[in-house]
Amino acid sequence: MPAPLITLLTDFGSQDPYVGIMKGVILGLCPAARIVDLTHAVIPYRIRQAAFLLEQSWPYFPTGTIHLAVVDPGVGTSRRPLLVEAAGHYFIGPDNGIFSLLDPARVSEIAVTAPPASNTFHGRDIFAPAAARLANGESIARPIADLVRFTPQAATVLHIDRFGNVVTGLQSADVQSITANGTCIQLRVTTYAEAPADELFLIEGSSGYLEIALNQGSAAVRLHLHVGDPLDVLR
Amino acid sequence: MPAPLITLLTDFGSQDPYVGIMKGVILGLCPAARIVDLTHAVIPYRIRQAAFLLEQSWPYFPTGTIHLAVVDPGVGTSRRPLLVEAAGHYFIGPDNGIFSLLDPARVSEIAVTAPPASNTFHGRDIFAPAAARLANGESIARPIADLVRFTPQAATVLHIDRFGNVVTGLQSADVQSITANGTCIQLRVTTYAEAPADELFLIEGSSGYLEIALNQGSAAVRLHLHVGDPLDVLR
Amino acid sequence: MPAPLITLLTDFGSQDPYVGIMKGVILGLCPAARIVDLTHAVIPYRIRQAAFLLEQSWPYFPTGTIHLAVVDPGVGTSRRPLLVEAAGHYFIGPDNGIFSLLDPARVSEIAVTAPPASNTFHGRDIFAPAAARLANGESIARPIADLVRFTPQAATVLHIDRFGNVVTGLQSADVQSITANGTCIQLRVTTYAEAPADELFLIEGSSGYLEIALNQGSAAVRLHLHVGDPLDVLR
Repeated sequence: MPAPLITLLTDFGSQDPYVGIMKGVILGLCPAARIVDLTHAVIPYRIRQAAFLLEQSWPYFPTGTIHLAVVDPGVGTSRRPLLVEAAGHYFIGPDNGIFSLLDPARVSEIAVTAPPASNTFHGRDIFAPAAARLANGESIARPIADLVRFTPQAATVLHIDRFGNVVTGLQSADVQSITANGTCIQLRVTTYAEAPADELFLIEGSSGYLEIALNQGSAAVRLHLHVGDPLDVLR
Repeated sequence: MPAPLITLLTDFGSQDPYVGIMKGVILGLCPAARIVDLTHAVIPYRIRQAAFLLEQSWPYFPTGTIHLAVVDPGVGTSRRPLLVEAAGHYFIGPDNGIFSLLDPARVSEIAVTAPPASNTFHGRDIFAPAAARLANGESIARPIADLVRFTPQAATVLHIDRFGNVVTGLQSADVQSITANGTCIQLRVTTYAEAPADELFLIEGSSGYLEIALNQGSAAVRLHLHVGDPLDVLR
Repeated sequence: MPAPLITLLTDFGSQDPYVGIMKGVILGLCPAARIVDLTHAVIPYRIRQAAFLLEQSWPYFPTGTIHLAVVDPGVGTSRRPLLVEAAGHYFIGPDNGIFSLLDPARVSEIAVTAPPASNTFHGRDIFAPAAARLANGESIARPIADLVRFTPQAATVLHIDRFGNVVTGLQSADVQSITANGTCIQLRVTTYAEAPADELFLIEGSSGYLEIALNQGSAAVRLHLHVGDPLDVLR
């Protein structure tokens, strides 16, 4: 049986040792754990972006993987810590909508056995220990009925990637055009290589969502778009 | 017995393969090592910031962990390479004050067995091999009496985190107010959730130090503060 | 026999889960693999910079390491996926010049067994699975005669590191001076400690290449230099 696999997705960035500290807590409790970073560059407090990035990532991990997702604007309030099971994977994080895009087989509330050492760092004090205990095969949660879900907003910018590709919340094939900040994009291609130089186009990205892209350039910079911006869609 | 655990803290950033190269050296000498990044975003040459981030991190790792800390403005000079033991943990790095915040049980000078391959990359040529040899159970150092310590500067900005929280060097509960760049902050809260919108406040952070913060905003940007800036403290 | 070791070098950055997804694919196919990041901050599509960073890194890893290098402006076109063997190491990536600085003992074309799931993310769909299958000891490629190589451009900026050191493509000891954006640098030192304050100098860096540097400052900022910029060299 392979060693437990735990992924981490947060808005903690990489300038602080926050993520390293969570890894120390996990490895102290479960020395055999293998830990993989998804990304820690979620825009601070952007739960929808985190939900999208989690949805993009978890299917590429083996069954039984534990995914720890901590983007938590409400840290310090009475947010419930959750364990969600879906498609044979485990998801741990706050009950604030971050698991909205999952199709849960079971939702549980994590039983916090001791008061957290701080009011500000539940990743270290609650979620990392819960992941390690789950990896050790302990029972950490009791089933509950429901979890917080946000309402979908397909016609917005979900994410902007490293290359300036603008990921929308749109999955349908019937989109005729997207207008962003006054610019209408209707050219549709299936590979980047097909796209003419210096022209904005629509493409179904590796995400499965429709993306606005620019060959070897940044569509986001060209269109002055940011995560969360609205888009006009013509179907 | 679990595999050796080695953490890395440097000012090497992530745009270069410097950290990856150190990991290659470690894994070549000690294939079983597990390696965890604390952070590599220490501001170049900021030894005090590195000492703070190390202090924040190491207690969350299991006893026996080896912590490799390389922030070394004086690389190429006759700085001694150190092995410091404290609370059952091991610390390896240059003798330049980076271990000032530890309470050492033993201080040793690492015996460098071969001249380093370069004058500029002691992380690769001296410190990574030393950590791997220590992880392998080899004797790498001879005890010495003392190490370089910097003098404390509590009333300064020690660190600014991803969220713009300004970490001060102040730990005492008797602080009445802090004035930074002409703005006086005296509101004290114990959780972020208590803080009114858009108002600067003081909070004991997860660091244990007093932080200047702004709910879902950047206190550092609001106050134009940078690491190392002085603060006026009223007790 | 130690677990397979796989390094990753890409231009994917760290704001997306692209790298994490590749790790999920690798660990799903080869659970024992140990994975090390070299860097993911190659400037998008800069194959020459990637080739340099790979050359800097691989010799510090143990024999048998698999190096996965994905910088691929032509993703979606009929670029061949390569397996290159050199000095007992394995290199996997697109046939676009990224392996120009290797001295191959054998070059093979990777046999892609299934059509990739997307046209845009060959790192996930082609290269990561190939690395995992190779790590598992499978036969993944058939030998071919040749690979794409770019022509050397020594008198250019190959890379700018975290500290602002400007790495040139020059290795020869007979360089008298380098002129960059109108500023002529001829001071030569062998350690940073020798360099006078606030003065630009030339140094053979840990890279083995000649670098333009500034003691505790950024030569790149001072000279307004970027990766790919030309340099005037006097021998």
